[in-house]
Amino acid sequence: MGTNKTTRLSARETADWLRERDDFLILTHRRPDGDALGSAAGLTNGLRGIGKTAYVLENPETTPRYQAYVSPYLAPPGFAPQTTLSVDTADTRILAANACQYAQRVDLSIDHHASNTGYAKFTCLEPALSSCGELVYDILIALSGEISAGAAEPLYVALSTDTGCFQYANVTANSLQVGAALIEAGADHRAVNKKLFRTKSRGRMALDGALYTDLRYDYDGRAATGVLTLELMERCGVTEDDLDDIAAIPNLAEGVQVGIVVRELEDGSCKASVRTSPGVDAGEICGKFGGGGHSMAAGCLVGMSPEDTAAALIKTLGELFKKSSPKPPQKLQ
Amino acid sequence: MGTNKTTRLSARETADWLRERDDFLILTHRRPDGDALGSAAGLTNGLRGIGKTAYVLENPETTPRYQAYVSPYLAPPGFAPQTTLSVDTADTRILAANACQYAQRVDLSIDHHASNTGYAKFTCLEPALSSCGELVYDILIALSGEISAGAAEPLYVALSTDTGCFQYANVTANSLQVGAALIEAGADHRAVNKKLFRTKSRGRMALDGALYTDLRYDYDGRAATGVLTLELMERCGVTEDDLDDIAAIPNLAEGVQVGIVVRELEDGSCKASVRTSPGVDAGEICGKFGGGGHSMAAGCLVGMSPEDTAAALIKTLGELFKKSSPKPPQKLQ
Repeated sequence: MGTNKTTRLSARETADWLRERDDFLILTHRRPDGDALGSAAGLTNGLRGIGKTAYVLENPETTPRYQAYVSPYLAPPGFAPQTTLSVDTADTRILAANACQYAQRVDLSIDHHASNTGYAKFTCLEPALSSCGELVYDILIALSGEISAGAAEPLYVALSTDTGCFQYANVTANSLQVGAALIEAGADHRAVNKKLFRTKSRGRMALDGALYTDLRYDYDGRAATGVLTLELMERCGVTEDDLDDIAAIPNLAEGVQVGIVVRELEDGSCKASVRTSPGVDAGEICGKFGGGGHSMAAGCLVGMSPEDTAAALIKTLGELFKKSSPKPPQKLQ
Repeated sequence: MGTNKTTRLSARETADWLRERDDFLILTHRRPDGDALGSAAGLTNGLRGIGKTAYVLENPETTPRYQAYVSPYLAPPGFAPQTTLSVDTADTRILAANACQYAQRVDLSIDHHASNTGYAKFTCLEPALSSCGELVYDILIALSGEISAGAAEPLYVALSTDTGCFQYANVTANSLQVGAALIEAGADHRAVNKKLFRTKSRGRMALDGALYTDLRYDYDGRAATGVLTLELMERCGVTEDDLDDIAAIPNLAEGVQVGIVVRELEDGSCKASVRTSPGVDAGEICGKFGGGGHSMAAGCLVGMSPEDTAAALIKTLGELFKKSSPKPPQKLQ
């Protein structure tokens, strides 16, 4: 957490703080994921449940994938909040473009990113939790002792998307317990799982086929790189909404410590996503290209062609491997 | 459940029954999956924990994927059991080849398949549970009030593999609660998830690439078929151990109600796996070819080439679609 002057609140203190206030507007981050939108929707539902006025600020980058979960809660034009909250947002610089007008006056940040800069007047931060949704669950339980079915489903979306449906390393026993409680409260987990984790567009099926087939392995299979050109994406007929979690694919290959997906953008530059195993810092790799992120997941924008971007990243990675000499991958039994 | 004469036991009654007996041998089914092997290992560990002698009968078809979980519990040559148990096995006809000598004298069947034929003297059957592992958990809690770390990990393997790591429609709040309890008891869920759900051999990566790329859609996208020829599998360098859950892939495509994977066998015949959405009976389709299974997952052996097998299944499916006129797939939002 940054050195800004903020007051830290526990989940219970946050519930008391929310009870004393009203007319809430909830902000989310750019390229909002299931955790940001699900947390915002669940929190709004919970606040309305205790008689408050609460809305989510529409995020212009919301994909169809998550639209239905958040649409019942969107703020009407001209809504003037008394209290401004943000969820799942570590830094005001990543607030959605239309939320920037509130950047200097966020009253409370509810987050699970250790990198939260402390930009809000109050901060409820629990980095040990898998997702912001897991934290909003605790806050709503402290607020009213229960979760409505209306809050349970978006919170299940938040929890399940940030944990890859309970597969990722951020899952704890508490994550599963909260998942169970949300199902008992009425979340239709079967519908959510089918839609978000067991359904791909035919375009995405074709794109995955090309990505799996053409994956390039370097450094004795310690690195794997996939390249998504505009031509390939057009041929497969995919849109932004089809690309969810695609950066995780190269790391599925046995022995891979660093997975890279390079995606060509409309202007000819590229976005690179880097995912790593413990021991290799994804943030450090992307930092060399002016990007950043977490130690195991980071990204950067590179003003080169897809091929040159991939080559530059692989070269940088080689220097890092040389410097740190991490252990060679162990053969899984 | 069949009409055979068996005595049904609850999980608690099963614990009492086990306490009164000793010298256990635990049997599993052919082509054993994580649920069969994990349940067997977990149960054996739990029985040893209360001072019993217990072993798992080695299953010759155990793949390397699951070997480590079951190897500490394998019966020594010549072990003569007083009590014979089976886990996850609905019918003696699917017992592992070397377990058939015990087929007529199974003392207790612990299972979650509604189709269990009642072949054992006693049967502990809970079809509402996602996995046999979820049931063994209840039995061990009734037996000793706790789960050791040694039992927790194979039971987590059982539960997570049968639920696709908590993604499939068989998941309930109880499944997640049991998962949380197993983690708290010491299961290394991160290692299991990484190994079983987040790691594919490079051969499997290539095979998935071909499968995704060459998937064929029929009946306005309501059916999707993938064909795995011996030539393709050899080119990708995959073994049986690499094919886990591959039959689920065609059903990932949006709008698909029936997914078919045809795999060419060494003798030139084919194994077809059929997965369906509710409303189309996979068992009925495979029944036309002398196979069978569940309503949403079934299989059959067909004495034809891969191309002819795929064509025959698609033709049969067309007759079924015509007869039942199921609703066209709904576009997912």
